[in-house]
Amino acid sequence: MSSPLRIALAGLGTVGGGVAKLLSLRGKDLATRAGRQMEIVAVSARDRKKQRPFDLKSVAWFDDAAALAKADVDVVVELIGGEDGIARKAVEASLKSGKHVVTGNKALLALHGASLAALAEEKNVALKFEAAIAGGIPIVKALRESMVACGVDAVRGILNGTCNFILTQMEKTGRPFAEVLKEAQRLGYAEADPSLDVGGGDTAHKLALLASLSFGTAPGLEHVRVEGIEHITPDDIGFAREFGFRIKLLGIARRTADGIDQRVQPAMVRAGTPLADVDGAFNAVAADVGPAGHFFFEGRGAGEMPTASAVVADLVDIARGNIGPAFGRPARLLEPLKPATAGLASSAHYLRFEVLDVPGVLAEIARHLAEAQVSIESMIQRGRAPGEHVSIVMITHETRQAAVERALKAIGRSDKVRAQPRMIPMEAP
Amino acid sequence: MSSPLRIALAGLGTVGGGVAKLLSLRGKDLATRAGRQMEIVAVSARDRKKQRPFDLKSVAWFDDAAALAKADVDVVVELIGGEDGIARKAVEASLKSGKHVVTGNKALLALHGASLAALAEEKNVALKFEAAIAGGIPIVKALRESMVACGVDAVRGILNGTCNFILTQMEKTGRPFAEVLKEAQRLGYAEADPSLDVGGGDTAHKLALLASLSFGTAPGLEHVRVEGIEHITPDDIGFAREFGFRIKLLGIARRTADGIDQRVQPAMVRAGTPLADVDGAFNAVAADVGPAGHFFFEGRGAGEMPTASAVVADLVDIARGNIGPAFGRPARLLEPLKPATAGLASSAHYLRFEVLDVPGVLAEIARHLAEAQVSIESMIQRGRAPGEHVSIVMITHETRQAAVERALKAIGRSDKVRAQPRMIPMEAP
Repeated sequence: MSSPLRIALAGLGTVGGGVAKLLSLRGKDLATRAGRQMEIVAVSARDRKKQRPFDLKSVAWFDDAAALAKADVDVVVELIGGEDGIARKAVEASLKSGKHVVTGNKALLALHGASLAALAEEKNVALKFEAAIAGGIPIVKALRESMVACGVDAVRGILNGTCNFILTQMEKTGRPFAEVLKEAQRLGYAEADPSLDVGGGDTAHKLALLASLSFGTAPGLEHVRVEGIEHITPDDIGFAREFGFRIKLLGIARRTADGIDQRVQPAMVRAGTPLADVDGAFNAVAADVGPAGHFFFEGRGAGEMPTASAVVADLVDIARGNIGPAFGRPARLLEPLKPATAGLASSAHYLRFEVLDVPGVLAEIARHLAEAQVSIESMIQRGRAPGEHVSIVMITHETRQAAVERALKAIGRSDKVRAQPRMIPMEAP
Repeated sequence: MSSPLRIALAGLGTVGGGVAKLLSLRGKDLATRAGRQMEIVAVSARDRKKQRPFDLKSVAWFDDAAALAKADVDVVVELIGGEDGIARKAVEASLKSGKHVVTGNKALLALHGASLAALAEEKNVALKFEAAIAGGIPIVKALRESMVACGVDAVRGILNGTCNFILTQMEKTGRPFAEVLKEAQRLGYAEADPSLDVGGGDTAHKLALLASLSFGTAPGLEHVRVEGIEHITPDDIGFAREFGFRIKLLGIARRTADGIDQRVQPAMVRAGTPLADVDGAFNAVAADVGPAGHFFFEGRGAGEMPTASAVVADLVDIARGNIGPAFGRPARLLEPLKPATAGLASSAHYLRFEVLDVPGVLAEIARHLAEAQVSIESMIQRGRAPGEHVSIVMITHETRQAAVERALKAIGRSDKVRAQPRMIPMEAP
């Protein structure tokens, strides 16, 4: 058996602690798989004095994570997070010193992935990030090493457990977003500042990485169109159910004739299809892989052990010498991502209008839609108490998004329409 | 870029042809991923003169696949099939000559996997078999390289597209097994001799490999308990629906206190769960991975491109130098599979009795069940025309299989009971 793989762990939060536990509890089996021992020999975290459920006595302590780059280790595991600051410094310094890097940091990679991958290749070390996307689902390895022969046409993912938990709870209880968010925060499913999750930013980071792995392009976060779930109402969810759909926050990346379309948005997914059935804090990724067909992966997307197990799998890969380019092809051959023209994507759309219950309002909406060449497949109109506003909900035939947006803009200007009309695309599975 | 990977292809059927097409059509992208060209330089097939949709002019022809072992190649791809005979000879000879081997041959590996893996390691070459299980679903890589940190407790799979197609069609049309089998044969979904598929043998081969990858044991095909779908009737399917279940042929392997339980059997799977929703020729695998939770993978399990893409992914791995032990740990460390004691598995069971409609028959059945300590949760009794037999269907509470079998044996001896009672376990997801 070769010499042990010496590991430095930067960040001892939930996931870092899980990694320490797994390497300790399952060390013997892991050594069998890895062909060598795997040992944590150095750590860095914020608070040296904090009580931890694992023993750090024989491990070198570093106050500065970036200093791990100079430690006598083979791999630095970065679990600090954040797109810049100390995480970036630690990763860059480690790669520059010829250390392998394993990270769960999607923000860092979505923004600086191409240059970090190039740095890793220059130094002939690994840069691995299975833990950055969908926790324990091995989607990074699948796209990097398995779905390579037929070309990926599209990936669609439920990539943020917080959003999926909130939408599932809204559906179950009929309660509004703000209330369910508070509950999620109390249960630890949402952060004190939830904006990166519920605003779609976290999903966008992960999507940019999935797109890179799928299409051989450099991560192009700036071209992801992002919409969160904050404005989804119990009404939307109820109407979706009436039409046989569920609302999910999807990250979608697809190859189109004029570029890569990347978007994060609430979408209507047909009930009974695999993505629609993903409940609570689970994650899932569906991939259309040309003539190899449609694949679907589901599993725990977050939490101590699912995420730590992804980190450990990357470590075993490195221990066994499986060092390949971070995004599946050499960084210099990653093409710049050419974004698809906005608005060309075509689908059916769910539209919701809150209107004053006065004569002519439906005629006015219908006229604007007709002018934009948007045709309607079905409609539900539902009143409240007299004098209050009513909801008009429509499903369009398949239409380009730009046309729908044009119509909604015109309709939004009407004095009979209360608030901005809502549009949610229907995702064909 | 390194020197090209020289490939010999043994078998030019559907999958072999797909591999040739993919390497030709997607050669440039694959070379980027592999870090080198990948070239088919030798082939062996039954009929040299057959017209093929790809060019073999510049390729060396071998009448004897085993002779590929002596060819000037790096990898031999075995797509001939069959547990012994020429496939086995070609694989053994190739490994002995220090060639990497990629194979889709589950029968060969289920029977001789441990010794072939040992041979590959002795020669420091790869033995890869992603195409052997569930076509394009990268479940071999996932279990070998990704689900390694937390320990797998159980895998359950729909691993035979022919059976799943037949059961799905029986459900849709209400037609009996024999009729739907004929249709499947006409459509090319079932072989002229369908026994290996519908009898569960093919699923057993795949399950033995999944169990080995999951539990670190040598493939133990002889310990798989196998039951096919031949005796499933439209009545069973109809009753299953009434109880909110669907019938699927599952391969199930789980770690129990006294050994590994491996079984292939028709099982009732609760409607609306991921495995129950797998329709037609699709395959799926669900894995319980200790504290990392539950994972589910679905995709095309057979056919030219899904299977060929799995072969090509293995070739890219080899081209990139990712050579690891075939079953995820050194062959000498694969433990002999200790089978779980038969009958200890506990679940609810669906029971169907075809009985004469005479007084006392229900009392007799109930007495035998009570004597074996099997208690009943619900029952449906349904008559046909007067004088004909009636079906009695029961769902038991959770009971050990051995107890149910004891009761059924006694009931089967009754002169009021027509034919052998049927038992189908209910698989809790």
